[in-house]
Amino acid sequence: MKKKSLAVIKIGGNVIDNKEALLSFLDLISQLDIPFVLIHGGGKIATELSIKMGIQPQMVDGRRITDAATLDIVTMVYGGLINKKIVAQLQSKNINALGITGADGGWIDAHQRNNSKINYGFVGDIDKVNGQKLQLLIDAGFTPVVAPLTHDGKGNMLNTNADTMASATAVALSEIYNVHLVFCFEKSGLLRDIEDEQSLITQITVPELSGLKQEGIISGGMIPKTENIASALEKGVHKVTLCKAEKLLDILSENKAAGTTFTLS
Amino acid sequence: MKKKSLAVIKIGGNVIDNKEALLSFLDLISQLDIPFVLIHGGGKIATELSIKMGIQPQMVDGRRITDAATLDIVTMVYGGLINKKIVAQLQSKNINALGITGADGGWIDAHQRNNSKINYGFVGDIDKVNGQKLQLLIDAGFTPVVAPLTHDGKGNMLNTNADTMASATAVALSEIYNVHLVFCFEKSGLLRDIEDEQSLITQITVPELSGLKQEGIISGGMIPKTENIASALEKGVHKVTLCKAEKLLDILSENKAAGTTFTLS
Repeated sequence: MKKKSLAVIKIGGNVIDNKEALLSFLDLISQLDIPFVLIHGGGKIATELSIKMGIQPQMVDGRRITDAATLDIVTMVYGGLINKKIVAQLQSKNINALGITGADGGWIDAHQRNNSKINYGFVGDIDKVNGQKLQLLIDAGFTPVVAPLTHDGKGNMLNTNADTMASATAVALSEIYNVHLVFCFEKSGLLRDIEDEQSLITQITVPELSGLKQEGIISGGMIPKTENIASALEKGVHKVTLCKAEKLLDILSENKAAGTTFTLS
Repeated sequence: MKKKSLAVIKIGGNVIDNKEALLSFLDLISQLDIPFVLIHGGGKIATELSIKMGIQPQMVDGRRITDAATLDIVTMVYGGLINKKIVAQLQSKNINALGITGADGGWIDAHQRNNSKINYGFVGDIDKVNGQKLQLLIDAGFTPVVAPLTHDGKGNMLNTNADTMASATAVALSEIYNVHLVFCFEKSGLLRDIEDEQSLITQITVPELSGLKQEGIISGGMIPKTENIASALEKGVHKVTLCKAEKLLDILSENKAAGTTFTLS
């Protein structure tokens, strides 16, 4: 039997931090004609709230060190403020959004990161995404809106990377659906020249990625991002697109080319 | 066909504010042998956070005036921090908790309170609880954990009274289930003498309530509470109990008498 199509869409902090950009994005996403799961990042609000409360944010390699006070802040901001603002907006646009974390409904098993060099605190690494539990919600007509938090099975929430959650969710749902994973970010896609938005690579396969890495075209923060994408494709995700948020409809509803599309071969 | 039994349980701020009391309560509730919906209040955390952030909380008749900044705080604290702490704890006790507000899954329609005398701000009054949408979650095996927030259908969250949400939810679910509504609070139940915990009224019917009001035994904050209870019973809720949190198992799993049980007649 042919699998149904489903999109797993990740929006990052830059869209969330900009009220108009977020509203425009939610307008677009509510016009999609396929079911989707939306996974949102955190943005700067948690950092701003930390500072207001006298807690100095500590970052190591772009990851937030999450002590108990910081865990409370990200749980409030990601799981409460951002998640419910998105849900209320989507509800007003007739999308039956249901805001969840990885803890709600127990669909993600995770554990606290164990790193002998750096104590990241309450940061989660994913063990398993249970696609069937998420499918129960999707089949009941709900549109999951996912905050980047998981739990450790021992009663603690864990701050978790949204890109990783999106990939792992897309992989797990690929057993059930024909999954298109879309990362919305600030650039047009994968660029040959990072300074030139015209140098967009529109199509690329996993084997071609290593060549681009050797040439130095994929570098810096794009290395983990493309590794994440390659891994998702190797584990069953049908297609991955990296694009600007405003291109979402082109890609998902009108099959127009936009951004960079990654396929296995 | 005989309706299945289901409990709608409301816990107030006093349990939430006390970490040990909350953990003991969640231990008890995870031992229940009937399905339940848990609705939690807000507690003092939102007030403390407001003050830390330099926003002076304003209360009128025990209701929080909710301006935009305060709405953000209650959305964070009720929908994020408290809700997810409860969910993570219940998940660790093998209850498949799913934390929601009235906005998630669109199961409560509400509007912003309109009061010509007092501008309550973003405070919600409930129009309709859609029991079928909540049933979808319950039948899929999830245990809803509900934060006292709704939405206005126009994209805004609304701060909403947890007692009212519990009653309205119990009434709506009574079309589907045999509902026992339990309010956990700080006293043993309805007392003949508010100073004497031994003066507990164990059983009372709706017609008997008006007599107690005339005698002055029901007064103050108990007037709206008992009116709320009478209305729930008149609209189809099978039984209402008012008791201490630690009596939950006695009442729901062992059918022992505890607290005050209200019935229609």
